[in-house]
Amino acid sequence: MRPGRFDRQVVVDRPDLKGREAILKVHAKGKKLAPDVSLNTLARKTPGFVGADLANLLNEAAILAAREGRQEINMADLEEASEKVTIGPERKSRVTLQKERLIVAYHEVGHALVQKLLPNTEPVHKVTIVPRGNAALGYTMTLPTEDRYLKSKNEYLAEIRTLLGGRAAEEVVFGDITTGASNDIQRATAIAHAMVTKFGMNEKFGPILLDNTHEGDMFQTKYYSESTGKFIDDEILKIINTAYADTKKILMDNYETFEKITKTLLEKETIMGDELDKLIKGEPEVIEELSETAEQSAAE
Amino acid sequence: MRPGRFDRQVVVDRPDLKGREAILKVHAKGKKLAPDVSLNTLARKTPGFVGADLANLLNEAAILAAREGRQEINMADLEEASEKVTIGPERKSRVTLQKERLIVAYHEVGHALVQKLLPNTEPVHKVTIVPRGNAALGYTMTLPTEDRYLKSKNEYLAEIRTLLGGRAAEEVVFGDITTGASNDIQRATAIAHAMVTKFGMNEKFGPILLDNTHEGDMFQTKYYSESTGKFIDDEILKIINTAYADTKKILMDNYETFEKITKTLLEKETIMGDELDKLIKGEPEVIEELSETAEQSAAE
Amino acid sequence: MRPGRFDRQVVVDRPDLKGREAILKVHAKGKKLAPDVSLNTLARKTPGFVGADLANLLNEAAILAAREGRQEINMADLEEASEKVTIGPERKSRVTLQKERLIVAYHEVGHALVQKLLPNTEPVHKVTIVPRGNAALGYTMTLPTEDRYLKSKNEYLAEIRTLLGGRAAEEVVFGDITTGASNDIQRATAIAHAMVTKFGMNEKFGPILLDNTHEGDMFQTKYYSESTGKFIDDEILKIINTAYADTKKILMDNYETFEKITKTLLEKETIMGDELDKLIKGEPEVIEELSETAEQSAAE
Amino acid sequence: MRPGRFDRQVVVDRPDLKGREAILKVHAKGKKLAPDVSLNTLARKTPGFVGADLANLLNEAAILAAREGRQEINMADLEEASEKVTIGPERKSRVTLQKERLIVAYHEVGHALVQKLLPNTEPVHKVTIVPRGNAALGYTMTLPTEDRYLKSKNEYLAEIRTLLGGRAAEEVVFGDITTGASNDIQRATAIAHAMVTKFGMNEKFGPILLDNTHEGDMFQTKYYSESTGKFIDDEILKIINTAYADTKKILMDNYETFEKITKTLLEKETIMGDELDKLIKGEPEVIEELSETAEQSAAE
Amino acid sequence: MRPGRFDRQVVVDRPDLKGREAILKVHAKGKKLAPDVSLNTLARKTPGFVGADLANLLNEAAILAAREGRQEINMADLEEASEKVTIGPERKSRVTLQKERLIVAYHEVGHALVQKLLPNTEPVHKVTIVPRGNAALGYTMTLPTEDRYLKSKNEYLAEIRTLLGGRAAEEVVFGDITTGASNDIQRATAIAHAMVTKFGMNEKFGPILLDNTHEGDMFQTKYYSESTGKFIDDEILKIINTAYADTKKILMDNYETFEKITKTLLEKETIMGDELDKLIKGEPEVIEELSETAEQSAAE
Amino acid sequence: MRPGRFDRQVVVDRPDLKGREAILKVHAKGKKLAPDVSLNTLARKTPGFVGADLANLLNEAAILAAREGRQEINMADLEEASEKVTIGPERKSRVTLQKERLIVAYHEVGHALVQKLLPNTEPVHKVTIVPRGNAALGYTMTLPTEDRYLKSKNEYLAEIRTLLGGRAAEEVVFGDITTGASNDIQRATAIAHAMVTKFGMNEKFGPILLDNTHEGDMFQTKYYSESTGKFIDDEILKIINTAYADTKKILMDNYETFEKITKTLLEKETIMGDELDKLIKGEPEVIEELSETAEQSAAE
Repeated sequence: MRPGRFDRQVVVDRPDLKGREAILKVHAKGKKLAPDVSLNTLARKTPGFVGADLANLLNEAAILAAREGRQEINMADLEEASEKVTIGPERKSRVTLQKERLIVAYHEVGHALVQKLLPNTEPVHKVTIVPRGNAALGYTMTLPTEDRYLKSKNEYLAEIRTLLGGRAAEEVVFGDITTGASNDIQRATAIAHAMVTKFGMNEKFGPILLDNTHEGDMFQTKYYSESTGKFIDDEILKIINTAYADTKKILMDNYETFEKITKTLLEKETIMGDELDKLIKGEPEVIEELSETAEQSAAE
Repeated sequence: MRPGRFDRQVVVDRPDLKGREAILKVHAKGKKLAPDVSLNTLARKTPGFVGADLANLLNEAAILAAREGRQEINMADLEEASEKVTIGPERKSRVTLQKERLIVAYHEVGHALVQKLLPNTEPVHKVTIVPRGNAALGYTMTLPTEDRYLKSKNEYLAEIRTLLGGRAAEEVVFGDITTGASNDIQRATAIAHAMVTKFGMNEKFGPILLDNTHEGDMFQTKYYSESTGKFIDDEILKIINTAYADTKKILMDNYETFEKITKTLLEKETIMGDELDKLIKGEPEVIEELSETAEQSAAE
Repeated sequence: MRPGRFDRQVVVDRPDLKGREAILKVHAKGKKLAPDVSLNTLARKTPGFVGADLANLLNEAAILAAREGRQEINMADLEEASEKVTIGPERKSRVTLQKERLIVAYHEVGHALVQKLLPNTEPVHKVTIVPRGNAALGYTMTLPTEDRYLKSKNEYLAEIRTLLGGRAAEEVVFGDITTGASNDIQRATAIAHAMVTKFGMNEKFGPILLDNTHEGDMFQTKYYSESTGKFIDDEILKIINTAYADTKKILMDNYETFEKITKTLLEKETIMGDELDKLIKGEPEVIEELSETAEQSAAE
Repeated sequence: MRPGRFDRQVVVDRPDLKGREAILKVHAKGKKLAPDVSLNTLARKTPGFVGADLANLLNEAAILAAREGRQEINMADLEEASEKVTIGPERKSRVTLQKERLIVAYHEVGHALVQKLLPNTEPVHKVTIVPRGNAALGYTMTLPTEDRYLKSKNEYLAEIRTLLGGRAAEEVVFGDITTGASNDIQRATAIAHAMVTKFGMNEKFGPILLDNTHEGDMFQTKYYSESTGKFIDDEILKIINTAYADTKKILMDNYETFEKITKTLLEKETIMGDELDKLIKGEPEVIEELSETAEQSAAE
Repeated sequence: MRPGRFDRQVVVDRPDLKGREAILKVHAKGKKLAPDVSLNTLARKTPGFVGADLANLLNEAAILAAREGRQEINMADLEEASEKVTIGPERKSRVTLQKERLIVAYHEVGHALVQKLLPNTEPVHKVTIVPRGNAALGYTMTLPTEDRYLKSKNEYLAEIRTLLGGRAAEEVVFGDITTGASNDIQRATAIAHAMVTKFGMNEKFGPILLDNTHEGDMFQTKYYSESTGKFIDDEILKIINTAYADTKKILMDNYETFEKITKTLLEKETIMGDELDKLIKGEPEVIEELSETAEQSAAE
Repeated sequence: MRPGRFDRQVVVDRPDLKGREAILKVHAKGKKLAPDVSLNTLARKTPGFVGADLANLLNEAAILAAREGRQEINMADLEEASEKVTIGPERKSRVTLQKERLIVAYHEVGHALVQKLLPNTEPVHKVTIVPRGNAALGYTMTLPTEDRYLKSKNEYLAEIRTLLGGRAAEEVVFGDITTGASNDIQRATAIAHAMVTKFGMNEKFGPILLDNTHEGDMFQTKYYSESTGKFIDDEILKIINTAYADTKKILMDNYETFEKITKTLLEKETIMGDELDKLIKGEPEVIEELSETAEQSAAE
């Protein structure tokens, strides 16, 4: 069996959790670590990192500590360093417009809340509206709990809904939608496309390979005629639109919680996963199983 | 969240308003500025400029002042210099035909009036029929009020109408249409296309990526079959034709104002934004919300 | 506003009428000009010429005068020189067959008469059946009256009819048609194609960019699906076939004039614009407005 | 007007009849010509030849004469030399099978008889079943009577029928058909294709350019959608199939003459144009006008 | 007759069974072999190996023996060496998650059980859930009994079912499906595609070549139109979906045996072919003949 | 007339029968030939051979004779040498499986028997199941009786049936079909394709060129739209499937003879053409004329 090639956060041939923790220990030698540092937690936060990345991370953290005149590297240094490598340096100077800041907050909480309420998702690590890097006005981070080799259909269906949570939030709250969701849309479409054409996760087509195009290929490798292409388009559209309808319903059914978290985020600018848990404590209804298409969804 | 990549006037990675003002201050050192110069205003007029552009702008302005034997650079020098860089040097010698001059005047006022009357648009800075550069027989300039990272569906719908204002004016006034609108048509089509295929801003298709072609790509990257392509074409056509019908209606509903401004433009050759405001002072009816398709539009 | 890119005789960035007259004056210094020479007329005949072309023209004319032992360059030398540069040297030795000569005469008068009778056209300068260059068995020359930056829909509709005048003449007179119209057909099709796909001059599609292919592009840049392509084909076909029907009707409604001019051309081999005016003096009915499609045409 | 680009035997930019005769006279100086030599006839036989070709022809003829020990070049030498250059050297040694020889004879007489009986065709110069060159088992030669610049629709319709005369003969005589017609089919199809797509010689489409592909182009330049392509295919098919039906009917209506000529050809191996005239002397019914499509044809 | 090019394990031009045994004997000279070593068995396990591969295999085995301080190479060394070359080195350190381990076990037993129960298949050599190489979380190995030159339609139909055994097991046991089957799906689709388009093994199309694309070709070589392509897609879909339905039925009809083997595999991690035989000893119903399409299958 | 380009065994530009015999005589000088050698027979066996091939053949034969210590080259040496050059050296060592040997025998006799029973075919030279070269498990050789320049429709229809004789035999005898027919299928499809698209040998399309792709062309040169492509596919399918149905019927109608020959072939491994004649001596019913499509075939 081969694991799916879809989840960027899980790369099989790179060091696994155990491996990363071992590498971190090696590079940490000769560096003073504060008592709050857990290399195991750090290893859990860095799936996909190779040895050089981990060494780099420790060096960046050491520099951050040195800037503040500390001899010991603490956990905050390491967290900051790992995010800097992954997403880019924090941009404190950027003035986000007041209205855009509002849109971004609802958008990010849309992602985070849907991810929290759905089964078959990874835990939310943090939500923030502090801009970072060139492109991100805000972001929601996930902390995968363990190295994974396989992705299931139900996990993909939940991931599509999580990705569409931002756009759904904009529509539900403002009645207007922005370009802020374009990357989310791209990723949700890519998952739906792969489910139907690569992983045989669609009931109409079944276990068949329809498209063997890989990222970066100059030409597409399609194994179907134009007429069949129309049916493929329709299946992908159904997956996306069923997911989008579900997602808007989740936000509306939990609107009070949605509002409460967004207000907190606008005040604090960043909410960690455990704070998020407390804000949802009324334990809202969790959706059990996701349907692939709108028809089935309508029947629920 | 990623901001949309569509609005050329807003480039996220370049210096923002604050940044440009700071850069201008640096380069202005050692140059004498007249009391009417506001570097903040200049910074607001130059979104997308990088440091080198701003330095160039100040140098050009200094040359203009020197040509007239002045030691101080005044605001007019800076305005002229910024337009020279953006659009090209003024061509006083070109004799525009009398009839073409008339067409151009109505065309530009068509753009400017629609932009003024619609919500979700940026303010008009100036309208002119003084030819400039190789291609422009006249133009309408916009002064964006603030750095923006997101574009909404309603803003795009208003932008399409503004772009079609010139063509609509020609049809409404002359009953014949010219090649002068070809660039406007290209830009309006590009926005409608991106709304449907990239930004998920179309109700038929929803939040799905249909086309990932970027400008300058050698090949198109379409994620749909020919049959689906027909439906995409139809949605784009609906957006354009609804917009065009709306635009003609706006001009006809405000025909007196339209005429008055055009006559003023033919006399003065250039009208600044505040003058435009005075000419529209009867405060004509502003359209509140734009429909995406002709059917909805017809229902209004 | 950008002027249309279609009319090859008008290139915006090259010297305009005033400019060309000034350049001619410069190069004429030191050359003796006969009293009949009007550099203004010459400038009007040479839109699109750059400085080098105009200098070349004067040199060629001087050579022609010298060959005949004259010291002064006269207007005929300059006319001959300008045509030599544009179309190619006259080929007196070529013996055109008697029947082909007849076909060519009717074909060229077809062009010229339609151009004379339609509004929104430029004046006819001369019609000739003296072969010139490699490909032309005869030709009709236009003298544009002024530098133009815009082309209107009605002008394009008239231009298509003028281009199809030659083929229509063959069909009306001989009941058989020849390959002589192939270049006319190519140009008429290109205009109809651009009206529909580039300039938004078609009622079915409206102000939308459908095709952004430029001449010399290796690949076509189409913004529509195959199914939409069928509708585009149909619109272009309608424009051409309506125009062709109109054109045949114009020739038949003015058959006496058509015959009279052709007989004169067969005798004289060349007819200048003013002679043409005299031959049409009965002032035949001028068509006022052109329809885009056959249905509308039929309703007239 | 531009002449058609289809007929390979007529190239406008090369020397015309007068020109070729003059060139032949130049190169013939210093060579002894027999009294039967007519350089005018030779010039008429060599349309498309440039100076070098004509010089080569005279040299080849001189060699042929020398081989037979003659000092004078006679007309037979010149004829043989011109055919050698055009088609290739005669291959006396090749033994054609008895049955294939029969097929070839009927095939070539099919071409020749159809060409003789149809109006708008050039005169037949000679028919032969002496194999020549690598590919030709037999051939029919045409002697164009004059330099031509234009081709008419009726001439093309007759040329297609002449080309299909060989295949029609096989079917009419043997009830089986061979690969011998493949080059004829290719040329007939090319003419029908150009009539519809390049020369506007089709009533369904009218004077429109549909395909601008030239021979040797790497990519096809089609100006129509796939759906329109089907209608184009159908028009071309109609032209070919109407022509083929006509052609078979011509052969069957003149079967006795057809047989008589073929028997003569099998005896003599070569028949010249004037001998052919005598064999047809009963003056069979000549077809007056050709229809473009089968429907019209059926109505005749 | 040419043998099929599909089965990677059988390459005609490489040494056959006899040849490989002979080559192994040559390279084994000078190496001490334990009494349990059977070079014949080894040769049977290595179809497709060329001389260099076989030499390499013996060297690897010698190294393995040396590492454990043994002078004699035993059969286990040779087996380990042959698998190392074919699949990659064993990765003892990788910790597979508990749930994924369960999925992998059922998946692999799905393959193995279907292969055992169907006629026209090769014997199962071993099933294992010890991860190996970069991609395989588990695998099922086949030991082909003899060199083969031809593949029959019934063998291909059985091979498709064997390949889909893993996915079917996931669906039958967990009601959810994973990306682990993506390689199986790719291979099953390739066989079904070749049956229809290359080997004429489909009743709708019969013995016709539809697609002559070979692996690694830059462009596809299709011999059919888009419309026919739809029918081809449908035939391939029928073959796959009939096979998948059959496969799920086989697993459900033999569910007890399926469970028993999986539990054994989870305990032992590896099951050899003879152990597998004992676990199935109740001798479950063997399917006799496979249908190509679902309709036929339903009729059974 | 041009001969068809399809039959590989007949190449027009290479030496013909007479030519080859003459070349063989030249190269045979200085070599001792046994009395049984007929250079005429050898020349008849080697159509398509150029001088170098024939020289090579004689050298190979000399080596074969020398290996057996003979001074004279006999006919067997020459036959072996000619087959070695054409197909590859005999592989005595290859052990073909018992069942595959059976399949191969029926397959080859299928070819040979159909070729014998159909009119318009060349004589069978020999049938063998001795493997030769890398790919051929057995083969049927044809000895063309004379140099041919033309191929007729009836000959192609017979050739398709002969090619499908192998696959038909498998289905009739075993009820299962193998990959052994893939090369036969490719060749039969190529002939049917060329009949319809190149040679005008199809009643639906008539004498028209539809596809001018040549072997080895990088791109296909199709002269038809996708919609027309569907009709072409259907015609080719009809030709193939009618032929396949006919072929199975021929084998079943002559099953006794079919069995008798196959048994003989399994015993002797090779049957020469004259032996084959004796085995068929009961003179079974020969099919007179072949239909192009199934409908017509059904009507027989």
